[in-house]
Amino acid sequence: MAPELQEENYTTGSAEPPQKTRVTVVGSGNWGSVAAKLIASNTRRLSSFHDEVRMWVFEETLPSGEKLTDAINRNNENVKYLPGIKLGKNVVADPDLENAVNGANMLVFVTPHQFMEGICRRLVGKVKADVEAISLIKGMEVKMEGPCMISTLISDQLGINCCVLMGANIANEIAVEKFSEATVGYREKKEIAQKWVQLFNTSYFIVTPVQDVEGVELCGTLKNVVAIAAGFVDGLEMGNNTKAAIMRIGLREMKAFSKMLFPSVKDTTFFESCGVADLITTCLGGRNRKVAEAFARNEGKRSFDELEAEMLQGQKLQGVSTAKEVYEVLSHRGWLDFFPLFATVHEICIGTLPPTAIVEHSERTPKM
Amino acid sequence: MAPELQEENYTTGSAEPPQKTRVTVVGSGNWGSVAAKLIASNTRRLSSFHDEVRMWVFEETLPSGEKLTDAINRNNENVKYLPGIKLGKNVVADPDLENAVNGANMLVFVTPHQFMEGICRRLVGKVKADVEAISLIKGMEVKMEGPCMISTLISDQLGINCCVLMGANIANEIAVEKFSEATVGYREKKEIAQKWVQLFNTSYFIVTPVQDVEGVELCGTLKNVVAIAAGFVDGLEMGNNTKAAIMRIGLREMKAFSKMLFPSVKDTTFFESCGVADLITTCLGGRNRKVAEAFARNEGKRSFDELEAEMLQGQKLQGVSTAKEVYEVLSHRGWLDFFPLFATVHEICIGTLPPTAIVEHSERTPKM
Repeated sequence: MAPELQEENYTTGSAEPPQKTRVTVVGSGNWGSVAAKLIASNTRRLSSFHDEVRMWVFEETLPSGEKLTDAINRNNENVKYLPGIKLGKNVVADPDLENAVNGANMLVFVTPHQFMEGICRRLVGKVKADVEAISLIKGMEVKMEGPCMISTLISDQLGINCCVLMGANIANEIAVEKFSEATVGYREKKEIAQKWVQLFNTSYFIVTPVQDVEGVELCGTLKNVVAIAAGFVDGLEMGNNTKAAIMRIGLREMKAFSKMLFPSVKDTTFFESCGVADLITTCLGGRNRKVAEAFARNEGKRSFDELEAEMLQGQKLQGVSTAKEVYEVLSHRGWLDFFPLFATVHEICIGTLPPTAIVEHSERTPKM
Repeated sequence: MAPELQEENYTTGSAEPPQKTRVTVVGSGNWGSVAAKLIASNTRRLSSFHDEVRMWVFEETLPSGEKLTDAINRNNENVKYLPGIKLGKNVVADPDLENAVNGANMLVFVTPHQFMEGICRRLVGKVKADVEAISLIKGMEVKMEGPCMISTLISDQLGINCCVLMGANIANEIAVEKFSEATVGYREKKEIAQKWVQLFNTSYFIVTPVQDVEGVELCGTLKNVVAIAAGFVDGLEMGNNTKAAIMRIGLREMKAFSKMLFPSVKDTTFFESCGVADLITTCLGGRNRKVAEAFARNEGKRSFDELEAEMLQGQKLQGVSTAKEVYEVLSHRGWLDFFPLFATVHEICIGTLPPTAIVEHSERTPKM
């Protein structure tokens, strides 16, 4: 796609057409399938992209005996994780990871985060050197030495550039084309961010690029801790006023924590879809909020483990483990006093404090 | 309270004690009564304030034949506007406006905003020259030449300094001492802002000062326009995702509009209680949201006037008239293209666009 190549086309009309960009989606769950649908609608429309969108599927055998990939390719629908939604005929499911990424110029990572290390290991040396990546994976881990960012994992392991896409994105609502927004976080190359925007943006899914990978990615993780706090307020029936105050304090701590870890993080990022909008969605609906509400209603007498097992069919709550990880960073760095809400959420989760402490402690002015 | 006066006390023990600050609350509705309760709890506690808090009451005769002021003073309760809540024995209701403000060092204005011009006219020459004022009045008017700020009206008419207090403050929730926050906006004198904080702050009501009167005051008005938009989304049953996106776009337009009118307005103000938290409360509950929801459910076929009459017992919606006023400013200044959400809310309210336009139009990237 170098300009001189295009020029040559115009003058001679005989050279190869400029190479079209090939996109592969690594992952095919609920959100991955919606992402493939969004992308496929754009690659069909835009001449700079190859029509076909390859989607790597972790192969399963359906109760009918059919392979999941065969079912997806036959029905043009992810019958297991996004039933009832046509993905676009140009989405091709592929059970072979290495084959799926072969020749791709843009890789979209959207798997459960615990699989990413293994996937990266398998991809070393299998991707183009100049491939561009984006991570849609929310819920990176926050280790004591700081957060283990998924975008950094991908960048480091594969030696490639990696953006992130986060936001108030409930997959099933976007699947039926309800209006939504998202944020692309990029590091340096704005033209790459714009290419991602081109690939994801539709009339009902508005994508905005911001130069702040860390801020965008941390929002996606830290909001789950605030959602636990919001759930406690719901369970205690304290009303919208208190809930709004707790969400605001949570947003302040998300911002302060991100900036203390990465001074490059921008305040304005928290006004984007990945910030305030995702926080609102997660604190209104979402399973972290829901189980925390049940926890508070039971006055903390039934553990999160027990409630999770009962309410979530084996899924684990991101917010509870993130709260623990954040707490470890805070105590390790001597920052506990700066983050009364984050600290209190963890102490309530482990039973050191009662659920009512969420307002008694969060109100403390952080010692900054 | 000059330091030398205090000093004198220590040495001679005979001089007059330093003069205590006297506080009067002008207004006694639902929020005014709660404000009096908050303040009274602090004047009892803090030696620098005179215990007694005077509250001007627009006199009414109760069905029992008793005067409202007598009932308040006898029961220590505003039986009409905040029944069931003790105000504190040091709150004294006074039906005489001039008497109520006589000798006051701090005036708290908390009346319906349409009464303020008349009240100010009556107070000219009746207040101390160095009296400090604060306005708790939400819903100033936005006139074509710019907003008519209540704090400016008070300052200009009485020739005194005027702060504002805004936030996610549902009076009945604060009355029963549920956790809440508020923001004091001040112009220059930080020590005055801190005195207001001292007067309002309690263990369950956390007040933060910010040097941005205009930003704080505009938040309190503009959020009602966003609440109308959020109500449309609810009525169209578009889900939490879309609602969060619309709230976020609304917050962005609140910020942009305020900054275009007053370049001194600070981004950080919108992270305070008066900003994001009040927006959340208003878009979750509140009558603007509720009537707008009904409007959208009826596909715009029943007018706001009709729905207001049916649902609000004669109260008028702030949001609808503010949307109209904002629209006039936008078209007068040629700013309509910068504010697709604000403009669309008004056009839906007057029937030019259908309620579904709220997402089709808000998604337009503002041309900035």
